[in-house]
Amino acid sequence: MESVENSVITTALRAREAAFRMQGIPHKIRNEALLAIARALETAKDKIIAANQLDLEGAQESKLPPSMIKRLRYDDQKIEESINSLNSLVNLEDPVGKTLMMTELDEGLLLEKVTCPIGVICVIFESRPDALVQISSLCIKSSNAVILKGGLEARHTNEILAEVIDRAVLSVDERFNGAVQLLSTREEIKELLKLDNLIDLVIPRGSNELVRFIKESTRIPVLGHAAGVCHTYVDDDADLEMALKVCYDAKVQYPAVCNAMETLLVHEKIAPTFLPKIASLYAKAGVRLKGDERTRRFIEAEIATEKDWSIEYNDLILNIKTVSSLEEAIDHINRYGSHHTDAIITRSREKAERFMDLVDSSSVMWNCSTRFADGYRYGLGAEVGISTNKTHARGPVGLEGLVIYKYRLIGSGQVVADYVGKNAKKFIHRRLV
Amino acid sequence: MESVENSVITTALRAREAAFRMQGIPHKIRNEALLAIARALETAKDKIIAANQLDLEGAQESKLPPSMIKRLRYDDQKIEESINSLNSLVNLEDPVGKTLMMTELDEGLLLEKVTCPIGVICVIFESRPDALVQISSLCIKSSNAVILKGGLEARHTNEILAEVIDRAVLSVDERFNGAVQLLSTREEIKELLKLDNLIDLVIPRGSNELVRFIKESTRIPVLGHAAGVCHTYVDDDADLEMALKVCYDAKVQYPAVCNAMETLLVHEKIAPTFLPKIASLYAKAGVRLKGDERTRRFIEAEIATEKDWSIEYNDLILNIKTVSSLEEAIDHINRYGSHHTDAIITRSREKAERFMDLVDSSSVMWNCSTRFADGYRYGLGAEVGISTNKTHARGPVGLEGLVIYKYRLIGSGQVVADYVGKNAKKFIHRRLV
Repeated sequence: MESVENSVITTALRAREAAFRMQGIPHKIRNEALLAIARALETAKDKIIAANQLDLEGAQESKLPPSMIKRLRYDDQKIEESINSLNSLVNLEDPVGKTLMMTELDEGLLLEKVTCPIGVICVIFESRPDALVQISSLCIKSSNAVILKGGLEARHTNEILAEVIDRAVLSVDERFNGAVQLLSTREEIKELLKLDNLIDLVIPRGSNELVRFIKESTRIPVLGHAAGVCHTYVDDDADLEMALKVCYDAKVQYPAVCNAMETLLVHEKIAPTFLPKIASLYAKAGVRLKGDERTRRFIEAEIATEKDWSIEYNDLILNIKTVSSLEEAIDHINRYGSHHTDAIITRSREKAERFMDLVDSSSVMWNCSTRFADGYRYGLGAEVGISTNKTHARGPVGLEGLVIYKYRLIGSGQVVADYVGKNAKKFIHRRLV
Repeated sequence: MESVENSVITTALRAREAAFRMQGIPHKIRNEALLAIARALETAKDKIIAANQLDLEGAQESKLPPSMIKRLRYDDQKIEESINSLNSLVNLEDPVGKTLMMTELDEGLLLEKVTCPIGVICVIFESRPDALVQISSLCIKSSNAVILKGGLEARHTNEILAEVIDRAVLSVDERFNGAVQLLSTREEIKELLKLDNLIDLVIPRGSNELVRFIKESTRIPVLGHAAGVCHTYVDDDADLEMALKVCYDAKVQYPAVCNAMETLLVHEKIAPTFLPKIASLYAKAGVRLKGDERTRRFIEAEIATEKDWSIEYNDLILNIKTVSSLEEAIDHINRYGSHHTDAIITRSREKAERFMDLVDSSSVMWNCSTRFADGYRYGLGAEVGISTNKTHARGPVGLEGLVIYKYRLIGSGQVVADYVGKNAKKFIHRRLV
């Protein structure tokens, strides 16, 4: 596999070179590149749809599941959506060059902490060709070079999209040479994930299995979440009408997503009244219930096993547990949850604050549905993904997840020798921003 | 090794539990814990010095190098310094609970982005027992649980220090139970570095070899820098008097540290005048010079090999290269440097800006010495370490490197179903902070 290894290193080095050059590309030109991609998608529409048709036919022949085929489709309407996204991305403020801090260390010695691109991002995604367009444009907006790897089932669509995007950005500025590159095989990704000296961040977009696999296969930082085991805790001080409405929404409104509730925790004091009511609502929606022993005293439910508490069903299935206290609820969530999104329903501000402090999750909520945890609803403008990491970026991640910062120290000939020993000059350390 | 594995998992779980509880400990109590540590160090001074004496004797018997024995010494004066650091740490603002962003998503639906502890930090350090006190107190200040591993040569000192700290914090609040734990063997660290589900961040403090070894041994995020290959580029528009002063400081003032200059880049136009002058200054300081061919036309120097450009000497040895342009200097730095700290000397603002934009390093400097890159000089108040990572924290890292954030969404019964489909409610997304 010598040759795969070499070709992947060549790709990564090309991306690295592009990333170095891109640090100098101003926001105006990056925005022009986004508009050029939008125009190029419009122009190449027929070719893109024809390529997608090949993939769809292949998918039907290989008898891929209908849900996958649906995600694979990239038609007139979806291309239009991509173009609209590109146009609104142009209007977002520049994530690069923001001053996070400014300190006067001494007269004529000014320190600035300024956001800058991360460098080379590797994005691995499944099926959805619109993800390729979206993530490439987020990387261009933030001056990062990107190496893309899509699924085999979408290869014709991905190839033409990558080509269209590459040409469009190059037509705006030749410094984008190597900014967007596509890999096509699993072997290549395997090699790429070894290059922790050349790749700065990996973003997997797809199934939990994909994310888990990537996290286990590389030392490069990975931005993503491998599971969404979300909880709602209905406290004994809850407004029960509100609790019914919110718990229904968290499970039923769209169960296939990571921010849907998988386990409902109910305080024992209200369990006898609340559980029958919510169970009857869930029954009408076809939700299958699993409960612990105490819960099963009040409603009909299968018995929940120890294993069930950690499962992300992504389906109309729900675990219910009756707990004796707020503390038991918090312990359960921290132990069995995936640190994604968890909510409490209560009238007590004190208990809500305790819950939000002690639950170790990327989003903690009070009196609303876990389903709100996403970049669009949070108003982030663009969504890079949802992260359950404890470093760098957590929760719904916008463009800020694609930048880091550097320190800029601007002096007038200062040397450290003047600040040590006898008669040492003193630092002022006056914070300006 | 079954039993080592189990005991390490027990330690990690205990730290995890402590981290969950510590999320709820207010700043006032964390500061009380720091003051309790300061008092306890004072009280236990004699016992600590006696333990340190044992380690020093052991070190002399094992014939450890004098520089290592010096770092190992933890005497009256050093204990006093630790106590002073603890007292000034109390005065720093709380790194936890800072509001980074606040957005009104809709009436009665408020989103806050708030800093919070990371969780469980593992710190691996060599020799210096003061590092144990410093890093434990930084973790307590930021509400993180810490697992410490010091060098075998300092084990008596480390054991008593960990015990003193553990007792001191427990006397303030029992929720600190498990907040500070000490491991003593290499086997334990090997096991601990596997636990990426229990440990959130590893901070190695010590030699480059240690940092490199840790980075290669774990999937847990590592905060650190494995090398400091720093450059100064003297542009043809430089004030040569300033350049002489700054380049002398960057190499000579304290060559043993990561922010000292290892390679000097000089523009060809000024090389004939500048190089002989700086070479004569370096000669007086005993600096050994290695140069590329062009450089050797102007001064005496050994020939620099391809390998030399990437070496961190940490000594009075310097590479010098004559370059034809700003771009060549930037390319050299991005290719051979360690992305730590690099400076340009020039009168041209335009060239300085280009250099600071395009050099991909955690600190970029204009007209001053690379030696300024450190947490104390930058006024960060406390230094966790210096990072060359491209995610989470970069450059000199203060307490902000020990926190992440969570989203808190505070509602009044909102459900997502009301915001989709026909007659959907619209989000306001009014940014308040």
